Amino acid sequence: MCGIFAYLNYQVPRTRKEIFETLVKGLQRLEYRGYDSAGIAVDGPSKNNDISGNQICLIKKTGKVKALDEELYKKDSLNLEEELHTHFGLAHTRWATHGEPSAVNSHPHRSDKDNEFVVIHNGIITNYKELRKYLINKGYEFESETDTEVIPKLIKYIYDNRESDSVSFSTLVERVIQQLEGAFALVFKSRHFPGEAVATRRGSPLLIGVRSEHELLTDDIPIQYNSVHFKDGIQERNSHNRPDAINSVGDDRAVEYYFASDASAIIEHTNKVLYMEDDDIAVVGGGKLSIHRMNRQAGEDPVRAIKTLQMELQQIMKGNFESFMQKEIFEQPESVVNTMRGRIFFDKKTVVLGGLKDHLKEIKRCKRLIMIGCGTSFHAAVATRQVLEELTELPVMVELASDFLDRNTPVFRDDVCFFISQSGETADTLMALRYCKRHGALTVGITNTVGSSICRETDCGVHVNAGPEIGVASTKAYTSQFVALIMFALMMSEDRLSLQKRRLEIIDGLRILPELIKQVLALDEKIKAIANELYQQRSLLVMGRGFHYATCLEGALKIKEITYMHSEGILAGELKHGPLALIDKEMPVIMIIMRDACYSKCQNALQQVTARSGRPIVLCCQNDPDISQNAYQTIELPHTVDCLQGILSVIPLQLLSFHLAVLRGYDVDFPRNLAKSVTVE
Amino acid sequence: MCGIFAYLNYQVPRTRKEIFETLVKGLQRLEYRGYDSAGIAVDGPSKNNDISGNQICLIKKTGKVKALDEELYKKDSLNLEEELHTHFGLAHTRWATHGEPSAVNSHPHRSDKDNEFVVIHNGIITNYKELRKYLINKGYEFESETDTEVIPKLIKYIYDNRESDSVSFSTLVERVIQQLEGAFALVFKSRHFPGEAVATRRGSPLLIGVRSEHELLTDDIPIQYNSVHFKDGIQERNSHNRPDAINSVGDDRAVEYYFASDASAIIEHTNKVLYMEDDDIAVVGGGKLSIHRMNRQAGEDPVRAIKTLQMELQQIMKGNFESFMQKEIFEQPESVVNTMRGRIFFDKKTVVLGGLKDHLKEIKRCKRLIMIGCGTSFHAAVATRQVLEELTELPVMVELASDFLDRNTPVFRDDVCFFISQSGETADTLMALRYCKRHGALTVGITNTVGSSICRETDCGVHVNAGPEIGVASTKAYTSQFVALIMFALMMSEDRLSLQKRRLEIIDGLRILPELIKQVLALDEKIKAIANELYQQRSLLVMGRGFHYATCLEGALKIKEITYMHSEGILAGELKHGPLALIDKEMPVIMIIMRDACYSKCQNALQQVTARSGRPIVLCCQNDPDISQNAYQTIELPHTVDCLQGILSVIPLQLLSFHLAVLRGYDVDFPRNLAKSVTVE
Repeated sequence: MCGIFAYLNYQVPRTRKEIFETLVKGLQRLEYRGYDSAGIAVDGPSKNNDISGNQICLIKKTGKVKALDEELYKKDSLNLEEELHTHFGLAHTRWATHGEPSAVNSHPHRSDKDNEFVVIHNGIITNYKELRKYLINKGYEFESETDTEVIPKLIKYIYDNRESDSVSFSTLVERVIQQLEGAFALVFKSRHFPGEAVATRRGSPLLIGVRSEHELLTDDIPIQYNSVHFKDGIQERNSHNRPDAINSVGDDRAVEYYFASDASAIIEHTNKVLYMEDDDIAVVGGGKLSIHRMNRQAGEDPVRAIKTLQMELQQIMKGNFESFMQKEIFEQPESVVNTMRGRIFFDKKTVVLGGLKDHLKEIKRCKRLIMIGCGTSFHAAVATRQVLEELTELPVMVELASDFLDRNTPVFRDDVCFFISQSGETADTLMALRYCKRHGALTVGITNTVGSSICRETDCGVHVNAGPEIGVASTKAYTSQFVALIMFALMMSEDRLSLQKRRLEIIDGLRILPELIKQVLALDEKIKAIANELYQQRSLLVMGRGFHYATCLEGALKIKEITYMHSEGILAGELKHGPLALIDKEMPVIMIIMRDACYSKCQNALQQVTARSGRPIVLCCQNDPDISQNAYQTIELPHTVDCLQGILSVIPLQLLSFHLAVLRGYDVDFPRNLAKSVTVE
Repeated sequence: MCGIFAYLNYQVPRTRKEIFETLVKGLQRLEYRGYDSAGIAVDGPSKNNDISGNQICLIKKTGKVKALDEELYKKDSLNLEEELHTHFGLAHTRWATHGEPSAVNSHPHRSDKDNEFVVIHNGIITNYKELRKYLINKGYEFESETDTEVIPKLIKYIYDNRESDSVSFSTLVERVIQQLEGAFALVFKSRHFPGEAVATRRGSPLLIGVRSEHELLTDDIPIQYNSVHFKDGIQERNSHNRPDAINSVGDDRAVEYYFASDASAIIEHTNKVLYMEDDDIAVVGGGKLSIHRMNRQAGEDPVRAIKTLQMELQQIMKGNFESFMQKEIFEQPESVVNTMRGRIFFDKKTVVLGGLKDHLKEIKRCKRLIMIGCGTSFHAAVATRQVLEELTELPVMVELASDFLDRNTPVFRDDVCFFISQSGETADTLMALRYCKRHGALTVGITNTVGSSICRETDCGVHVNAGPEIGVASTKAYTSQFVALIMFALMMSEDRLSLQKRRLEIIDGLRILPELIKQVLALDEKIKAIANELYQQRSLLVMGRGFHYATCLEGALKIKEITYMHSEGILAGELKHGPLALIDKEMPVIMIIMRDACYSKCQNALQQVTARSGRPIVLCCQNDPDISQNAYQTIELPHTVDCLQGILSVIPLQLLSFHLAVLRGYDVDFPRNLAKSVTVE
C-alpha cells in the first residue's frame, strides 16, 4: 500500500515553499499507508514559453516523509520564494511491493530522463512484466525494479505514437488504463499539459477535495461517456458530442484541488470531496474538473456527487499518548459506546441497526452466514462466531478472505456474507465481496470508514463508528467490530422467545461494558511490569479456547506486528496434538482461563503446562485461587457474560504488546514492513 | 499391514514349548507391523499314522502378542514337553483392514472345521467378494469378515476337485494365486502335507531364513519353471522334466527354515536369508527348499541367491533408517498405493470405496460436509477442502474437534460429518462424533485402525490402510488420509459430466503419485544440507496459500513436535496483515510456491519477503527460474495436478523436521510431552 497526494492550485498564487509544505503535510497524513520512501514532482524554474521551459523536477528519498522534507530544501536550483499562480504537484509515500525501498524505486515514476510524464501509483500492476518486455522492445529504457514504471513509459509510448497533435491528456490516460491489469490509483502530470491533472483508479482508493472561496456551481458532476451507447432506444452522450465542459466552479475563478488516497490528507484544506469509482478518469484543465468514463453500464449512476465530510482533524491527533496505538487502546471505553450509540436501547432492551433493518427479513431467511475478513477483522469474526451460531441458530462459517478466494469457495443465493474491514478498502476482502455478489449472495459490510469501497458495494451494512484508527496495529476497531457483530446477533434473535433470557443477559453486559473496560485499562502498570520481564524473549505462546481462542489469535498478532517477537495463538484443545512439545521452563506462555464452559478443560491445559515446568502468565477472573496457585503470574479481569468476556481479555494483550514494543525500542505506530490498510492483494 | 512368521524344523528335535517360544518371539519382532490380534497354527498331538492323526491346532487371541503368549500355555490338551523332530508352525500378528480385531477374524485362517489347510496372509485381496460368493455357491462356509478367508477355502476347493491324488502342495498354491488379485504374502500349512511348507508373495514382503550346522550346498537356488519355454531356440527346463531336487543342504541333514515379513524376526536365528520375488512359490518338503515359478520372463534371473545379512536387529526393525518416523516417511510410495489398492481402477477410471458405497446416495443428498479432526488429521481436512468443495459442489466446513465441541456448533440432520483420526481413538474427535450422532447427522470415519472406537461408532467409513504408524509425529497417515479424502471426492463426482475432465486428470495424477513421491524422497540429501543451516535457529516460518496452506500448517506442526523449534504455518495471503513484521534477515522462512492458480500471488509474497531482506527457502516446481532467482535456496519438486501437489510438498517438510530433530539431538520417535494417540480430552 502507498499513499497518494496531489495538489493543484488554479489562479491561486502559491510560493514553491508553500506548495512543498502542502505536499509534505499531505504525505504525513498518509504516512500510515506506507513509509519506506517518498517523493514529489513539481514544476521546475520557468524559463520561457516553449515546451522546453516546462521542466518537471523530481525529488525522491528513501525513508520516512521527514527525510524527504529535509531533502526538499537542499535543492539550490529551485527558488523557494517563486510564486506560481497555477501549478500541479504530485507527492507519494511508498510501501514497497516490487523492488526494495530506494530513491530509484520510489515515486513519482517518469517516462524518460526529460520527465515528460510523471505518475504516482498505489496498487499493483499484475501484467507489468509483459508490458515492460513490450516497451523495452520498442526502445524504452527502464531504471527501476517496480511494476509502476511501465505506466509512465506506456503513456509516453502512446503519446509518441499519437495520430493527431490534438490528443488530450485524458485520452492518453484512458488508453493507458485499457492496457493495465491489477489494482491502481494513479495521478498523472506532464510537461506537455502544464497545469493539467489527470487521475484514475481501479481497485485502489482515490478521492478529490475541492476548495474555492466561491460556491460550487453544482454538487453533482455529470459523467462524460466516451462512446455512443443506446439505452431504451435513446442515444446517450458520447465524446464527440459533449455538452459544455462541466465545472465545479465558475470559469476562471480561483480553485484548488487535492487528490488523495483518503480524506485525512484533505480534511484540513476542505470538507468538499468527491469519491472516484473504478475506471473513472478525473481531469482538471483550466481549473475545471470533469469525470470521464468509457462506457455507460446499465444501472450506473451518471453523476459523481461532491459530498461534505464531517470528520474533524483533531480526531486524528494523538492527544497525551506516546503513540496513536496507545491512545486508541485507551479510547475503547468511548469507542464501544460510539458503536452502540443510537442502536441499543437499554431501557427497551432492543437493538436496531439502521443499516440492516430493511434487509433483516431477507437475512433471517438465509441458510448460512459467512463472515469474511483479514487479520484482526477475521479475528473479530472468530470471536463472535459462537454467539452468532447460538443466537441466529444458523451455520456460521468464518473465512480468511485470501483463502476464501484461493479456494473458489462455493457460495449460494441463500447465503448472507459479511465483509469485515476497518478501512473498508482491504483488497482481498473487497474482492471476496465482488465474488459473493457475482454468486448472488446478500452482502453485508462491517467497516469503520464511511464511503469506503466495501461500504459502497455491499447491499447493506454496519459502520462500527470507532473513529479514525491511525496505529497500524488495530485495537479499538477490533472491539467495535466485536460489539457490532454481537448487536447483529441480538437483533436477529429479538423474536425468539427461548433466547430472551440470554439476550437480556448480553444486553445488560453491553450496558456496563465501558465501565469494565476502564477497570481493565487500570491494570496497565501491572501489565507494564510483566512486559519488563518478557521483553527480551524471542518467542511467546498465547493459549486459550472457546470464547478466547480469538483473543489468543488477536493477542499474538498484536505482539507479532509491533514487537517482532514470534508469538503464536494456540487453541488450548490442540495442545496435546503437538504444541505441548514446545513447553519447557524457557518458553513464555500466556493462558486465558475465564469462568465459562471451558473452565475445567483450560485448567487441565494449565496443569499440563506446569507439569512441563512451564511458567504461565494467566488472564483469569478476579478471585480465582485455583488458578492463581498454579500460575506463575495472573492478570485478574472483571467477570462478564461469557460471549463478551473476549472484549475484556484482549485488552491486556493490546497493552502488553504496546509495552513490549516500547521496551524493545520500536516505533509502535509504524511497525516495520506493515501498512495500515492493505489495498493490494 | 500385518506380520507373518513361520518356523519349520527338519530333523531338529524341538519341544512344543520351544516351538511356541520361537513363534512368539518372531511375532514380537513384527509387532510394529500390527498388534490388534494374533494367532498360531501348530500340529496337534500325534495319534497314529493315518491322516486323521495330523491334527492342526489353531490358537488365536485379540490384543497384543503378549495376550496370545499367555493363551498358549492355557491349552491343557497340548503337551508342552512333547518333542517334535520335524514340525511346521505358523504365526501371525494382525493389523485389521477387513473385519474388526477379534479371534475369529485373526489369522491363521482355515479351510474348514478340520483345519485341512491353514494360511497366514499379509496384504489385501481385492477380488475377495467375487471369490467368496463363488465359494459360498459351491457350499463352502465362511466364518470371518476377512478378505483372507477366501484363500484357505479356495485351496480346499481346488484340493477337493483335484484330478489326481498325486497333486503337489505347491501346485495347489500355484492354482490359488492364479485366482487372486491384490497384494499378498502367504504361508500355507496342511494336514495333507505334514512337515511341508509352501510360501508365496505378490506385492507384500516375504523372506526365508535358513539355519543348519552343515554348510549349504549352494548359495544360488535355481528356479524351477512349470511350463516349457523357448528362448534363443533352446528348450529350458520345465516341471515335467525337472532336474534332481535342488536343496540347500544335503539329504536328510538337520535344517531349520524361518519365513517372515522382514528380517527382524529372523536375524537372531540365522543371517542366511533368501528374499522372495513376486509370484515365487517356495516349497520345503523333506527338508529341501525349492523355488518354483510359472513362466520364465525374458531377462529374469533364473536363481534366487541366499544372502548373508550383516545387519543388527535394531537396524532391521527400522530397516536402514535411524527412526521409525524416517522409515515411515520413506514408506510413503508404498503406503499411498495401499490406500488406493482395490479402490481405484485406473483402467476403468472408477473409484469404489467399499465402506461408503452403500451410503453414497444419502451422502449425496446432504446440505453440507463437516470435516472434524485434531492436529495432523485436521490438516488433512484443510488440505482437501478445496477439491471436496469443487467435486462435491457442497459447502465444506473444517473443524478442530475441540473447538467444534467448545462452540456447541449447530449440526443438522442433513449434514454429513467426517471424523478423521489415525488411531480412531482420539478423544476429542470421538466426542465430536457422538455429539453429531445425537444431532442426527450421518457420520463417516476416516481412520487407520480397523475396529477402533471411531470405526465402530460411525455409520460408515474408509480405512486409509497406511499400516501401523509408530513415530509419534504422523507422516504416512497424513498422506494416506489425504488420498482417501481425494478418493471420496472422486467417487462423489463420478456421475457429473462437467467434472469428468477434472476427475480423469486427478485419477491419472494418483496413478503416477508413488513414482513422484520417490522423486521427492530422492531430495533427502539436499534437505539434510538445509537442515544443517537451520538447526540452530529458534523460530521458523512456513508460508503458502491455496492448496499449500495445509502443508504449511502440517510442516510447522512436524517441526514443533519433534524439534521443539517455534515454527508456525502462515497463510501467505495474511502476510501483509501482520506476519510480515517478523521478516528480517535473521528469521528463517520457508515458502511453498507451486505452479497453480496462486502462483503469481505467491510470487508477490516472495517479493515482499525478499524486499525486507528475508532469505526464503522455497519449495517450487522444477525449472522455475523466476523463483530460483529470488529465493535464497530452492527445493524443486515434480509437478502434478494442483490438488495432489500438497502430498508432494509436505514430504520435504517431514524430512526437514526429521533432520532438524536429529541435528538438535532429540529422540525423533518419542518427542517430549507428546503421546502417539491422544485418548483423553
